[in-house]
Amino acid sequence: MSGNSIGKLFTLTTFGESHGLALGAIVDGCPPGIELSEADLQLDLDRRKPGTSRHTTQRREADEVKILSGVFEGRTTGTPIGLIIENTDQRSKDYSNIQDTYRPAHADYVYDHKYGFRDYRGGGRSSARETAMRVAAGAIAKKVLASKGVQIRGYLSQLGPIAIDPTRFDWSEVDNNPFFSPDAQAALEMADYMDALRKEGNSVGAKITVVASGVPVGLGEPIFDRLDAELAHSLMSINAVKGVEIGDGFDVVSQKGTEHRDEMAPEGFLSNHAGGILGGISTGQDIIAHIALKPTSSMRLPGQSINRQGEAVEVITKGRHDPCVGIRATPIAEAMMAVTLLDHLLRHRGQNADVVTDLIKLR
Amino acid sequence: MSGNSIGKLFTLTTFGESHGLALGAIVDGCPPGIELSEADLQLDLDRRKPGTSRHTTQRREADEVKILSGVFEGRTTGTPIGLIIENTDQRSKDYSNIQDTYRPAHADYVYDHKYGFRDYRGGGRSSARETAMRVAAGAIAKKVLASKGVQIRGYLSQLGPIAIDPTRFDWSEVDNNPFFSPDAQAALEMADYMDALRKEGNSVGAKITVVASGVPVGLGEPIFDRLDAELAHSLMSINAVKGVEIGDGFDVVSQKGTEHRDEMAPEGFLSNHAGGILGGISTGQDIIAHIALKPTSSMRLPGQSINRQGEAVEVITKGRHDPCVGIRATPIAEAMMAVTLLDHLLRHRGQNADVVTDLIKLR
Amino acid sequence: MSGNSIGKLFTLTTFGESHGLALGAIVDGCPPGIELSEADLQLDLDRRKPGTSRHTTQRREADEVKILSGVFEGRTTGTPIGLIIENTDQRSKDYSNIQDTYRPAHADYVYDHKYGFRDYRGGGRSSARETAMRVAAGAIAKKVLASKGVQIRGYLSQLGPIAIDPTRFDWSEVDNNPFFSPDAQAALEMADYMDALRKEGNSVGAKITVVASGVPVGLGEPIFDRLDAELAHSLMSINAVKGVEIGDGFDVVSQKGTEHRDEMAPEGFLSNHAGGILGGISTGQDIIAHIALKPTSSMRLPGQSINRQGEAVEVITKGRHDPCVGIRATPIAEAMMAVTLLDHLLRHRGQNADVVTDLIKLR
Amino acid sequence: MSGNSIGKLFTLTTFGESHGLALGAIVDGCPPGIELSEADLQLDLDRRKPGTSRHTTQRREADEVKILSGVFEGRTTGTPIGLIIENTDQRSKDYSNIQDTYRPAHADYVYDHKYGFRDYRGGGRSSARETAMRVAAGAIAKKVLASKGVQIRGYLSQLGPIAIDPTRFDWSEVDNNPFFSPDAQAALEMADYMDALRKEGNSVGAKITVVASGVPVGLGEPIFDRLDAELAHSLMSINAVKGVEIGDGFDVVSQKGTEHRDEMAPEGFLSNHAGGILGGISTGQDIIAHIALKPTSSMRLPGQSINRQGEAVEVITKGRHDPCVGIRATPIAEAMMAVTLLDHLLRHRGQNADVVTDLIKLR
Repeated sequence: MSGNSIGKLFTLTTFGESHGLALGAIVDGCPPGIELSEADLQLDLDRRKPGTSRHTTQRREADEVKILSGVFEGRTTGTPIGLIIENTDQRSKDYSNIQDTYRPAHADYVYDHKYGFRDYRGGGRSSARETAMRVAAGAIAKKVLASKGVQIRGYLSQLGPIAIDPTRFDWSEVDNNPFFSPDAQAALEMADYMDALRKEGNSVGAKITVVASGVPVGLGEPIFDRLDAELAHSLMSINAVKGVEIGDGFDVVSQKGTEHRDEMAPEGFLSNHAGGILGGISTGQDIIAHIALKPTSSMRLPGQSINRQGEAVEVITKGRHDPCVGIRATPIAEAMMAVTLLDHLLRHRGQNADVVTDLIKLR
Repeated sequence: MSGNSIGKLFTLTTFGESHGLALGAIVDGCPPGIELSEADLQLDLDRRKPGTSRHTTQRREADEVKILSGVFEGRTTGTPIGLIIENTDQRSKDYSNIQDTYRPAHADYVYDHKYGFRDYRGGGRSSARETAMRVAAGAIAKKVLASKGVQIRGYLSQLGPIAIDPTRFDWSEVDNNPFFSPDAQAALEMADYMDALRKEGNSVGAKITVVASGVPVGLGEPIFDRLDAELAHSLMSINAVKGVEIGDGFDVVSQKGTEHRDEMAPEGFLSNHAGGILGGISTGQDIIAHIALKPTSSMRLPGQSINRQGEAVEVITKGRHDPCVGIRATPIAEAMMAVTLLDHLLRHRGQNADVVTDLIKLR
Repeated sequence: MSGNSIGKLFTLTTFGESHGLALGAIVDGCPPGIELSEADLQLDLDRRKPGTSRHTTQRREADEVKILSGVFEGRTTGTPIGLIIENTDQRSKDYSNIQDTYRPAHADYVYDHKYGFRDYRGGGRSSARETAMRVAAGAIAKKVLASKGVQIRGYLSQLGPIAIDPTRFDWSEVDNNPFFSPDAQAALEMADYMDALRKEGNSVGAKITVVASGVPVGLGEPIFDRLDAELAHSLMSINAVKGVEIGDGFDVVSQKGTEHRDEMAPEGFLSNHAGGILGGISTGQDIIAHIALKPTSSMRLPGQSINRQGEAVEVITKGRHDPCVGIRATPIAEAMMAVTLLDHLLRHRGQNADVVTDLIKLR
Repeated sequence: MSGNSIGKLFTLTTFGESHGLALGAIVDGCPPGIELSEADLQLDLDRRKPGTSRHTTQRREADEVKILSGVFEGRTTGTPIGLIIENTDQRSKDYSNIQDTYRPAHADYVYDHKYGFRDYRGGGRSSARETAMRVAAGAIAKKVLASKGVQIRGYLSQLGPIAIDPTRFDWSEVDNNPFFSPDAQAALEMADYMDALRKEGNSVGAKITVVASGVPVGLGEPIFDRLDAELAHSLMSINAVKGVEIGDGFDVVSQKGTEHRDEMAPEGFLSNHAGGILGGISTGQDIIAHIALKPTSSMRLPGQSINRQGEAVEVITKGRHDPCVGIRATPIAEAMMAVTLLDHLLRHRGQNADVVTDLIKLR
């Protein structure tokens, strides 16, 4: 169980630090008989990979995943799937000057206090490197979900001050720019903004939206494992996330009941303010979640901090880093949505497979 | 485990529907030797109780909790604590006309689909009645945490369009008005606004903020049981919550790195944009979380819906209900923060009790 | 989760001490639509109830269970089922002289050390009273399993030195004597043996066998949640159990491979040394488990011990107690087998419901 | 969580089949600051390794374990420890003739039914290969426990009909013979017996005893996670185990209360029939557990079975296998005892670290 495991039936457990020998994961409870190969996983890993544009970190990460078990003759066996990615490019020397220093807004300080010491090279276990395994596991979950008509897609809805324009929304644009922006014009503005940011040596936050469509009604286990609560958990567990919304999120604060409620008619729901989840259970409508990612903590601009001895120091993070974490988070958010939805699909059918109704399903 | 249980060491499991015989809970893993009595629990339950002002529901709920086990001679024994609250005032007849109808924005539709049928009286298991047990359990957690110097307090930061003014913030005002507002002037505006809303027969959303102070550094179990992820889980599991933020939440999207980062000096942290959690671990600063609650789904204003047979119907919810759920959610949010923090305090010391450092602790 | 919860999908959590106000349980994850009433539970509780023969304790326990939630119009709703039994007859004064004394072979010593102090009246949480809730929950599980053709029955196979004779085995005898013995003649010998034991003021152990028939093939989640491992867990968790066997149990130590293996033929398995479980997964054959129960620790015959201060004392347990715990354990063992099997039935279908084969099923 | 994970705070999750690319594990929740290297793990792995005597399988398994994460500068970091062992010698062709055949007493039949198909090479996931990871993880747990004065040692108490003689018991003999027998003379008899068995092409069962000494009082989480129940779970989860006993085990059936109870005196417990656990909690005495292992199912002697099509076939298992699994199980049983004890040590201190008493501790 412990903290590096998530899910009850479809379970993901991971290990690995930024400068360790390898990252790895065990994906347990995957239904048997699903066609699976490394290529399925590599697709999403490549979407996440840095070094593909000038807007992402220049750190070369091969990120080649290997499947070590749980697949036989091209299909999942139902036994645990072991995954591994060897770390090939870490460049320890970039971080040696901060061995005793606590970088502001990093996890250095808390790891030292919690464990007594830490692997100070890069971010150690708190580094964003661990997200590679989330993406690999998410690819497995996506495959299974796809076989049941569930599709999960994400996009960047805002980068710093630049929000996408819903009237220019086009899903096919998402993979056409380095930002996962569904708004081509906004993507151009983002590029300019990022160039300026890079020159400045600063960073900025982002907001990602993930949408799951074709979700069957009935997923979610009230009252504590409500589907929205579990999605909040898996999404907030992503490095740098500071907020999670379902549907209209914080907009509901000022909405009146008559504005917010999604009325129903025989032809379907008349709106989707709920974001596809009511009473903690999926309604069959698109599940819509948004996450807020804080600006990267690694910046060239100096900041005040202390060192291990409690003395005041100035910190400058050299080396390679992402000026905007948001640029890479889209596949990670999709992955976490997939992992959680599949877990709930299995849990729901585990308990309720005998339920047969002739009720009309709305969308 | 299943869905009605939360926590790994300090565990809360609940049962009970709005119109069943009783609500109950089992609180397991409470450290022994803590002084505990029904009075400790009743205090917070009374804060949550409807019928105390014209602004909350007129449904009379006695909400008298009884401790059935786990306490001997006034102290917790370390064995599971059984709690019960008998349901005394349900008035079934208020809901009989909606036996076959799906109320918009309620869980009726999804419960019928998930389980094949439902207890249609009131909200059944999805009713806000179940929150009484969260509050009772939270009171136990608060007691234990208090013995370790941790204090948890919440307040209403926004009701509909009315936000509190931070310059008029006063903790002592929170218990002086029916809204848990720390801004006395805003409370007056809220009263007027609510009167108008009640006349209109509508409802509105709210935003609650919870603050935990005196939290030791080191709580949280990366990477999946990060403290913020677990708080997001327990807070989002509250009925009607559609969004959770830690620290600056969605404001981080447009913040630059230099604005967001909390720099450190020998005298302490210089800001708290992070909301007390970094890398998923508590820093020792105040933990600040915000939740968004949607407007109550039960309204007198008619709405379009369908019935069990899939036919179009109009729905009007008569009977007693809250025009703003937010008014009662403050003690519930405090309770969930307490339950999660205590669970993590125990988990952290379980694994890391041998860690001794002479590192400087900042606040 | 903590220690008072068992099961992953079908979950049982209990509370209650021998001298507290009540015993209770929350049964979560029960499939919806199952007909359930207090009568279903009371049947098995009465089988377990002391005071029905001179061979069991004279303590009057009403053991009337109430269902507080999770059932609507006579059927389970899929929401958690709350159960309660009020403690009506404890007679505190019987135990007051041992407030500071550690009774040998009881849990007094370990509870004091683990928690710092204990409820010294009777056995507190370690008392056999808590088994009432296991039996109630087991009755629910049995009901669900019965709807799927699975039947669970237990019997006493040995009381002290008196073993049943397999050639005289008759299932219909089990409920005809106070011992759950399927061998009527052995039951008579047991009665005489018990009378002598009672005069002597001593106690003796017992061995119980539980059989589950009609179990589908495929239950069990290797490698750690193998069905036999999980049964060992739930059976060993019963008060006084010191050993668990599956199938031939410890007899396999001296068996050769050719003797032990259960060969297969088109008409079915040719033997059942495995006890219905291979590789940790059910084969479809009867699941056979045996448990060894130690002699009751409460005896009139004095024993040496120490008190809280570490001084040597002599201990005599007056009051009412069972000279042979085994006499009551049969329904408890059935209950635990039921709870575990149902949990695994749900887990298996949760992950593998899509598996369809035309393989021949053997029995 | 799922089935390939065990433990709540100190958690072991494994993957890997006999003929897959590698075996692996993630050990999570290990306290930080413990010195750990591959050599620590290799020691126990070598004790388990086949090919070291003519009495064990001739299959060459390098079993070289690598630590991939969670250790920095020679000490555990508190972050998850990834372990890997590459499979180097599988010889697929040995098993190809049984692709469609169900070997009696193997898991072939049940895996096909549970998952729809299986990796038929060797035992797949049900093979004893997976135990390598248990031993590696157990070595980590042993290291942590040793730092707290807890020692775990096991031995073979019986091989087929040959039981060790307690009067000739010598711990130092255990590592002097291929059987882990503490009785040198019995070891010689066992050697002869095994030679005859090998000639015959048959196999036989065994009984292993594991002893944990120096265990602090108070470990175990009643009522379901009693220490004995959890040990029964982890020991029964070992391949081929059909029975588990704590202390006197099944001997208690015929014991009287006066014989069984472990009386106490100021100088300590006067006996240890309980095997170190009372009321599900450790007493401080040696924890003694016994397991019964069935004879290996792979034999040269032909057996009756069916194939995938349900037709009668004769099965002969060629290739390399253990005539007595018991010979290798000692380190595995020690490992599982270690893993479970460490988990409980952390859980106990998690909940009860504040308990301070001046009670006398007995041994």
